[in-house]
Amino acid sequence: MQSQDTDKLGPMRHSAAHVMAEAVRQLFPDAQFGIGPTIQDGFYYDFDLPRPLTPEDLADIESSMRDIIAADYPFLREEVDKEAARELFAHQIYKLELIQELPEPRLTVYRQGSFTDLCRGPHVASTGQIGPFKLLSVAGAYWRGDENRPMLQRIYGTVFATSQELAAYLTRREEAERRDHRRLGRELDLFSLQEAAGPGLVFWHPKGARLRRLIEDFWVAEHYQRGYQLVYTPHVAKTDLWHTSGHWELYRENMFSPMDVEGQEYIIKPMNCPGHILMYQTHLHSYRELPLRWAELGTVYRYERSGVLHGLTRVRGFTQDDAHIFCRPDQLESEVVGVVELARYMMETFGFKEYEIRLSTRPEKYAGTLEVWEEATATLERALAQLALPYEIDPGEGVFYGPKIDVRIKDALGRAWQGPTIQVDFNLPLRFHVTYVGEDGKEHLVVMVHRTVLGSIERFLGCLIEHYAGAFPVWLAPVQAVVIPISDRHEDYARRLAEELRREGLRVETDLRSERMNLKVREAQLNKVPYMLIVGDKEAAAGNLSLRLRSGQDLGPQTVAQFLTRIREDIAQKAS
Amino acid sequence: MQSQDTDKLGPMRHSAAHVMAEAVRQLFPDAQFGIGPTIQDGFYYDFDLPRPLTPEDLADIESSMRDIIAADYPFLREEVDKEAARELFAHQIYKLELIQELPEPRLTVYRQGSFTDLCRGPHVASTGQIGPFKLLSVAGAYWRGDENRPMLQRIYGTVFATSQELAAYLTRREEAERRDHRRLGRELDLFSLQEAAGPGLVFWHPKGARLRRLIEDFWVAEHYQRGYQLVYTPHVAKTDLWHTSGHWELYRENMFSPMDVEGQEYIIKPMNCPGHILMYQTHLHSYRELPLRWAELGTVYRYERSGVLHGLTRVRGFTQDDAHIFCRPDQLESEVVGVVELARYMMETFGFKEYEIRLSTRPEKYAGTLEVWEEATATLERALAQLALPYEIDPGEGVFYGPKIDVRIKDALGRAWQGPTIQVDFNLPLRFHVTYVGEDGKEHLVVMVHRTVLGSIERFLGCLIEHYAGAFPVWLAPVQAVVIPISDRHEDYARRLAEELRREGLRVETDLRSERMNLKVREAQLNKVPYMLIVGDKEAAAGNLSLRLRSGQDLGPQTVAQFLTRIREDIAQKAS
Repeated sequence: MQSQDTDKLGPMRHSAAHVMAEAVRQLFPDAQFGIGPTIQDGFYYDFDLPRPLTPEDLADIESSMRDIIAADYPFLREEVDKEAARELFAHQIYKLELIQELPEPRLTVYRQGSFTDLCRGPHVASTGQIGPFKLLSVAGAYWRGDENRPMLQRIYGTVFATSQELAAYLTRREEAERRDHRRLGRELDLFSLQEAAGPGLVFWHPKGARLRRLIEDFWVAEHYQRGYQLVYTPHVAKTDLWHTSGHWELYRENMFSPMDVEGQEYIIKPMNCPGHILMYQTHLHSYRELPLRWAELGTVYRYERSGVLHGLTRVRGFTQDDAHIFCRPDQLESEVVGVVELARYMMETFGFKEYEIRLSTRPEKYAGTLEVWEEATATLERALAQLALPYEIDPGEGVFYGPKIDVRIKDALGRAWQGPTIQVDFNLPLRFHVTYVGEDGKEHLVVMVHRTVLGSIERFLGCLIEHYAGAFPVWLAPVQAVVIPISDRHEDYARRLAEELRREGLRVETDLRSERMNLKVREAQLNKVPYMLIVGDKEAAAGNLSLRLRSGQDLGPQTVAQFLTRIREDIAQKAS
Repeated sequence: MQSQDTDKLGPMRHSAAHVMAEAVRQLFPDAQFGIGPTIQDGFYYDFDLPRPLTPEDLADIESSMRDIIAADYPFLREEVDKEAARELFAHQIYKLELIQELPEPRLTVYRQGSFTDLCRGPHVASTGQIGPFKLLSVAGAYWRGDENRPMLQRIYGTVFATSQELAAYLTRREEAERRDHRRLGRELDLFSLQEAAGPGLVFWHPKGARLRRLIEDFWVAEHYQRGYQLVYTPHVAKTDLWHTSGHWELYRENMFSPMDVEGQEYIIKPMNCPGHILMYQTHLHSYRELPLRWAELGTVYRYERSGVLHGLTRVRGFTQDDAHIFCRPDQLESEVVGVVELARYMMETFGFKEYEIRLSTRPEKYAGTLEVWEEATATLERALAQLALPYEIDPGEGVFYGPKIDVRIKDALGRAWQGPTIQVDFNLPLRFHVTYVGEDGKEHLVVMVHRTVLGSIERFLGCLIEHYAGAFPVWLAPVQAVVIPISDRHEDYARRLAEELRREGLRVETDLRSERMNLKVREAQLNKVPYMLIVGDKEAAAGNLSLRLRSGQDLGPQTVAQFLTRIREDIAQKAS
């Protein structure tokens, strides 16, 4: 959006929503109008219409909109009292409801051509100033998001200042749809969500599970390497534990409801922290033992309204790549540096080179003393400074229990995803009385750091699928190569070749179906398999293979040794 | 018990219980008597006494028992009617309760010396015929196992025919106590159970988690190797799913109670099978794709009364090393052979050389047709015959949904543990309509095989801890070696050596505390660390190490290369 004055894009889009509403009224004179705000990248308007919209309707509406824009009607602002507003919108039930609820005695309306809408503005001066636009899609939306109110039809559209920008946006959008992890998840058979089990609960199919396990294995090895220790804690615990932690009080609406076991209430865990604390407390810890870095791939369950669930990115059950660091105050800085370094390394290994760092400071309500907050916030700043990493401060956006660092990673389309988080916690050590014995022989409260580097395995995989558009780098590809015999008589050799490569630790399949070779190659490409090893008479005789890439490139004959060298380099390079 | 007529051991032990009761009455004339049956390896008697028993009391009781045995009182049997029985036990409230409830009009009592007990017998002829005995322990026990009735004191004891047999039993018992996984779990800091979280829920501490992950990694690799594919499924699902599966109807008392999410009931999963079926059903499967072998390390939650929970072996949350094989009927035999071979390989790799196999056949209530049962049972028999494995048949002990093979493994003390299970299932494919498209283009029901090879990770680890008495083979040892500097000035070298070995992929720690070397060696031995690498002036100068084993054996100076060769051989050999 470099060439664009973004201040103008808002009014332009909002004006386009009014023009769209006018066009809809031309098509459906009895249409009832909901609201029509701007959103990121465009606008929408909700309508109550006598029948569902068709793609042809959208074309008709676009055509009317073009006429209205060409007519260059001025947008006229007018102030009216509530009574006058009620008369103006006498037949518009949704508008009347809004007028009823607005607290101001005087309201503003905007008029263009024959159409008047209840609206705060601002708008462009006239319809002619609306840039190149496009209607994008129609979706059902409950009036005011309430599933007990009528379902309206929402038309999404967008406007840009120039045709080039619109075209670029539409291309980006198409690309994003092509990369949608829900679609690729199905096409590549990576995972599913199952109505019969309930929304927001992820089932990892063999290929997705392979990918997940590869990431987990890498994660575990990297954590051991850096002085973390793995732990496992159960998925349920007595509700009492969540009283002690304070989650019951502050976080209850995000927790699943309790279950009863022998008259005791249990909850499926929304967090791993209390469990780690219980383990820490099984014995005394000396200052010499700290820091302890306890990591867990802990699957937690949190309640989210079914309406907001989305693929892998917003779910009810997810696996945090969690760790809790129990340390002394004097160790906090180096621990934070260590976490940020680990997070950077992980991001870069998975192919994310760009990220934004935010430091969130003390909110209005907080646990602990001002002094402790200032010291911890300064410590986080020093850690980031030490790494020479640029960051922004989000004032007052810290959690009540301590300041935090959030990293947002950018994917191949430049979209931001929630990534690593590092949170300092003064609250739980106090609530659970988590201490160590200092050099002075006395008890001191530990500082706890909660951190994730991927965030959640599910969300991270959603992001990874979209980042790579499903074409994972070789080290992560669920199937690294498929051996395709040209005809039946090469099956034996295909099998032997695959077996040989599997013995070398590679994930290799054979495609022995009685289909044409070209179809098999095409399917392997659709499945984003990095390498296709074609074998026919020549290859069987020479004991080699003919190599194709998923890009379609044909690299011709290769010896097995050449192929092994090549694929091993790919695997070692990881993100390339 | 070779030299022993086991028919006599029962009466001898039961008689010893009477003698113990008589001795207790000598010490506590107002004692109220519960019951005193024989159990495996001994006997007990429950008493309601004015004060808790001390170890000195047990010695006194043993001494009185010796006198009663020396007096060689005959055991006299007498039949009495209920009225007479009530008079005989007029002051014994528990006996009166038993008399009240016994349906027979005439009861038997046994008398020895001055003591009479309500008892069906049989007994030895006289107290002198009771062999060498030993009182073992005291524990609280509710009258009739009901926590609303009084808590009695239960004295456990045992009798054997010969002193040698008694001594052997006591040694075995001591050894079993020494190996108790609950005790070793605490001493080696492997795991804990937390009252605050609830009973039967396991927390894996860093060392235990390391062990668990090593086993899981081995398990996963071995499964991939054998054509299994990993999957992951969520821990909760709608209760409806368990209605479809039939678990709600037949298995409900073993399930946790439901929780509510947006007015829908959810259950924490007691089984992984329905989840695997849902995934299978996301698309059609051709006969060519089968068998599919889907494996999951799936943590399930089942309700067990808190009273029966025991360490890692009887818990409420456990991780099944589960797999479901979806196959055609003609593939069942080879699939079963494959599972048994895998199970054998796993057992032997973990050091279990002895096992017993049982084949359980059709019970009275069963799903499916007689013909299908016979065919499947015959298939299991053929599979075992093909492997030339001896087995016993447990007639009618199959699950209602199909026949099964159970393997019981024997640990180092010869005790049996529940191991691999293989269950054929005709029920779930029918209930969920799980099918494949046959060569004939028609739908056919798949045969499902449920199987575990370790059973549950938790129970298996309990067994493994006891089998090895915590001294795990090198490939599984959470810490494989500890580097111990002789004094402060060898710390640097100790650190460098440890770092070098870690780079070679070994799990090596340093013990740099300012304690004496001998104490560190002793602690490493207590922690069952396989290797202690002692480094002092000579070792630092030569760049080598002095090697000690956890057995205490001192192997003297070794080069790093020699040590690496040795430990790599250990690791490669696994179970040795």
